[in-house]
Amino acid sequence: MPYIHYFYRMSKVVNIGILGGGQLGRMLLQAAANYPAEMYVLEKTTDCPCAPLCKNFRLGDIRNYDDVVAFGQSLDVITIEIEHVNTAALQTLKAMGKKVFPDPDVLQIIQDKGLQKQFYARNDIQSPPFVLTENRADTASYAAFLPAAHKLRKDGYDGKGVKLLRDTQQLPEAFDAPSLLEKLVDINRELAVIVARSAAGEMAIYPVCEMVFNPEYNLVDYLISPADIPAEAYEKATQLAVKTVEAFQSPGIYAVELFMDKQGEIWVNEVAPRAHNSGHASIEGNFSSQYDMQMRLFLGLPLGDTAAIMPSLMFNLIGAPGHSGSVHYIGLEKALQEKGVYVHLYGKSQTAAGRKMGHVTLLHPHREQLITAYQRIKDTIQVISS
Amino acid sequence: MPYIHYFYRMSKVVNIGILGGGQLGRMLLQAAANYPAEMYVLEKTTDCPCAPLCKNFRLGDIRNYDDVVAFGQSLDVITIEIEHVNTAALQTLKAMGKKVFPDPDVLQIIQDKGLQKQFYARNDIQSPPFVLTENRADTASYAAFLPAAHKLRKDGYDGKGVKLLRDTQQLPEAFDAPSLLEKLVDINRELAVIVARSAAGEMAIYPVCEMVFNPEYNLVDYLISPADIPAEAYEKATQLAVKTVEAFQSPGIYAVELFMDKQGEIWVNEVAPRAHNSGHASIEGNFSSQYDMQMRLFLGLPLGDTAAIMPSLMFNLIGAPGHSGSVHYIGLEKALQEKGVYVHLYGKSQTAAGRKMGHVTLLHPHREQLITAYQRIKDTIQVISS
Repeated sequence: MPYIHYFYRMSKVVNIGILGGGQLGRMLLQAAANYPAEMYVLEKTTDCPCAPLCKNFRLGDIRNYDDVVAFGQSLDVITIEIEHVNTAALQTLKAMGKKVFPDPDVLQIIQDKGLQKQFYARNDIQSPPFVLTENRADTASYAAFLPAAHKLRKDGYDGKGVKLLRDTQQLPEAFDAPSLLEKLVDINRELAVIVARSAAGEMAIYPVCEMVFNPEYNLVDYLISPADIPAEAYEKATQLAVKTVEAFQSPGIYAVELFMDKQGEIWVNEVAPRAHNSGHASIEGNFSSQYDMQMRLFLGLPLGDTAAIMPSLMFNLIGAPGHSGSVHYIGLEKALQEKGVYVHLYGKSQTAAGRKMGHVTLLHPHREQLITAYQRIKDTIQVISS
Repeated sequence: MPYIHYFYRMSKVVNIGILGGGQLGRMLLQAAANYPAEMYVLEKTTDCPCAPLCKNFRLGDIRNYDDVVAFGQSLDVITIEIEHVNTAALQTLKAMGKKVFPDPDVLQIIQDKGLQKQFYARNDIQSPPFVLTENRADTASYAAFLPAAHKLRKDGYDGKGVKLLRDTQQLPEAFDAPSLLEKLVDINRELAVIVARSAAGEMAIYPVCEMVFNPEYNLVDYLISPADIPAEAYEKATQLAVKTVEAFQSPGIYAVELFMDKQGEIWVNEVAPRAHNSGHASIEGNFSSQYDMQMRLFLGLPLGDTAAIMPSLMFNLIGAPGHSGSVHYIGLEKALQEKGVYVHLYGKSQTAAGRKMGHVTLLHPHREQLITAYQRIKDTIQVISS
């Protein structure tokens, strides 16, 4: 039976549309070229990472209902590379019989951090205690809940839309919009596990990654896989990621961000129902990359092998402070003299302080050598303006 | 000094044009997306592997002088993905100061198998003895030279333009056009070594691959890297490949096809001054793929690491006999259930008997397991028409 299903599917080229033209879409396009798929991208400007790699690039607003429906109605599969898309349009496309990854129901939960937290509570998924707040005045009534993280329910991204409220003196800095106030976990490590779930409910689980954050930008500084944490915590992180993805009851790829506290307890921070920064190193570091995995999901092919080829470390190339304008890359030649170094630039024409412009992946059979190499290389490449 | 040179180069996006829109160009485009380069492709039809992946796709004939000059004159680097291009136009572009890979002088030698053989003779590169023939009548005068391979001097490709003349009875089958008659080597193995040479004369040498041929189509059946041959022959093959590339005295990437005879002697068969079928497995099997290596060459970056990540085996997906028309792929789902299997389809809309439509790469830490996996998988995927 599955054979007939697959034969039917593979007997023609599948038309796949991506909402968003950023780097996650670009890396998906690179992987998609290996499969029997015709790729489409919707973005509001051609000055984006996907446009150079996609013949079927369409101009339009991924937040606009009509644009998204018009884009998707002639396609077979619609996916996203950023969460902030029009979910009503995705519901319409789903009702038309299109395959939508992630399911719009899942996306609606995840787009709203309040609903996301309620979802974890409802499904007995360990996540830091929280309360929902409507506005700044409302937030002030939760003084006893501090210290806490205050997070906008919608449209946060890359550390934007998050404030730490350590004590009552900081309450005037609270967001004056629907938000959630989350108890601070006594974080020892930040982890991420990428899990793919097929339509048949099979799971493919990547090794646990550790994310080391740069406090200045609240962007990941480097990410190393596998995480060097006690076996018990490693197993708990994997199990919690799987439990979380199972709760969504929907095929797709999910990046589950986790905290490990100082007692070794694991907590779900948040989930991205798409390819994720924490999975970039899978391009070289794992047998099936997160982008390859997405193509397998979209085409109904068997899930890929998530095993590590060797330990990997990834760091983002971000725009240097004080630089904005046409991008210049310095130091690629020096970094690329080293073995096991892979540079991925995203083709963005304009840099800005803190903007993600590319990433570098390091591979080495010995995990400890990765950190040594990172220390040597990290400042070699600089992303500046002219 | 090199630092200043590189800094200058990397301070802007480099415009790179590819002559030819086939699969070698497509895989180059996939790799190119990682680098600060804007890619252009010239091909006479949009129904080709490169068009979907290249915003700057240009319609034109790569054999036409005006088309090639018009295409290249606004670019920084011009390269090829097939040899049959207008070299006079490349000479013009070179004279304009463009970087041309390979150098048009090299390409002119290689485009003409007669000149290529004379080049090997002149440079003391061991290659099977040959004579040049003008026409069929002329060829008949070399009866004493048989058995031999008769090869058209120009435009041969993928086994086309080659005939075996075993005895005088076959002389009427000889090509009636400028050709070369080459003594048959008592072949034990067919090998290939890919070598990259930088502008500074540095060499990066890939492991020796063994090519196992399918006699029916005279296409490679599978290719396995590294070759399992005696250490002395392995070393000779590497040395002869390096000597051959050094003789061309020009930066670029070269696939050196070799014969190993039954005495373990190594002979140069022919050279392709570009990425090559025998290097496809380097995408997954080696730290720097042949496509990544090309980008490094074009941008003046350090050469990549050619070391194997693990042993690899590659086989082409060719159109099934008796099938032509819109392509259908059968069996991908079965092949992709296995670990360490990578499918690369080239996006060709039409299949034909023997046409290269894609390839499959297998990785395994144990070389002998690769052949077992190949036997299990090879007939799983079929390329048919509707």
